[in-house]
Amino acid sequence: MTPKHATTDHPIHEILSRRWSPYAFADREVAPEDLRALFEAARWAASSYNEQPWSFIVATRREPEAFGRVLSCLVEANQVWARRAPVLALGITRETFARNDRPNAAARHDLGLATGNLLAEATARELSVHPMIGILPDRARELFGIPERAAALTALAIGYAGDPAALPESLRERDTAPRTRRALAEFVFGERWGTASKVVR
Amino acid sequence: MTPKHATTDHPIHEILSRRWSPYAFADREVAPEDLRALFEAARWAASSYNEQPWSFIVATRREPEAFGRVLSCLVEANQVWARRAPVLALGITRETFARNDRPNAAARHDLGLATGNLLAEATARELSVHPMIGILPDRARELFGIPERAAALTALAIGYAGDPAALPESLRERDTAPRTRRALAEFVFGERWGTASKVVR
Repeated sequence: MTPKHATTDHPIHEILSRRWSPYAFADREVAPEDLRALFEAARWAASSYNEQPWSFIVATRREPEAFGRVLSCLVEANQVWARRAPVLALGITRETFARNDRPNAAARHDLGLATGNLLAEATARELSVHPMIGILPDRARELFGIPERAAALTALAIGYAGDPAALPESLRERDTAPRTRRALAEFVFGERWGTASKVVR
Repeated sequence: MTPKHATTDHPIHEILSRRWSPYAFADREVAPEDLRALFEAARWAASSYNEQPWSFIVATRREPEAFGRVLSCLVEANQVWARRAPVLALGITRETFARNDRPNAAARHDLGLATGNLLAEATARELSVHPMIGILPDRARELFGIPERAAALTALAIGYAGDPAALPESLRERDTAPRTRRALAEFVFGERWGTASKVVR
């Protein structure tokens, strides 16, 4: 149990309670078979009409040119720490259905489901992932040729959690502070919005 | 191994490969402690700026009035089968940050992450969940008093998978057909959009 192990009010599976998003990454590569398993996990996520609207662009530090391009799609505040991760990825959604080009209201949600699977598989393999929304989607489109109907929404820093002491002071505390969440009664409602469900009372 | 166990190209954790979304639900209640654990799992999902933009409205068949109201927020094609589930829920996102009311681009994505955790915990407990995007968000707002800055995006049917023979013929096949997904090389790219990453070649 580290301070990053969730203090849950009700028991949940350990690959969910152990998950957290570090800023500090160890200088250690991710084995290709582990990386493949992360995307295989994403592959089997639920998706509306089995549309699978997600795509990923991946680069490891062994490919410095591609890695640098993905890194340059992050906002500067994220580049500071994410450059130390051995693997970076962009999470991309297709906003319309492939079969009829109509808007897919579930597109971003389903990228979230796929990414959730990826995070769970990573945790099972003692890997850590830090998802980011602070990216430059237009730059990603330009650098990687992302087509019009798709858009980069997230980035992922993937690797092994590292020593927070290596972080700039402004970030260090985030990797050592306990994790906090709203209470169940604040977001699981029953009869009406704002009224806690009997299930969680 | 049922036909619904994913045929993965690379090994992944069994709570991810076993997950699928049934149309047929057994006539069996979900224990309150199991239901609480599902939302506890959602609670600890990653979220951008720890905003936790998700909320849920939950009703069990033991509360017929509330259950009927949630059911009436689904499109008719979903009501046909979802009425047999012992538990229904609505998934709601807050589209702006609580602290400054600016748009949260991650809102739907993060509801997806929370729902992904819920699905994983359900699978660990031998429960099944069928997420839906086919809902009537305006009706949900009216019936449950969902505030302006939030919106219902999804519904979840929760319970134990049932006998597909009990389904209308049009749905039966969906519960017995093998699961299919795009190949990794079709959505994990490297140098450029459309070019498979070395990781998955």
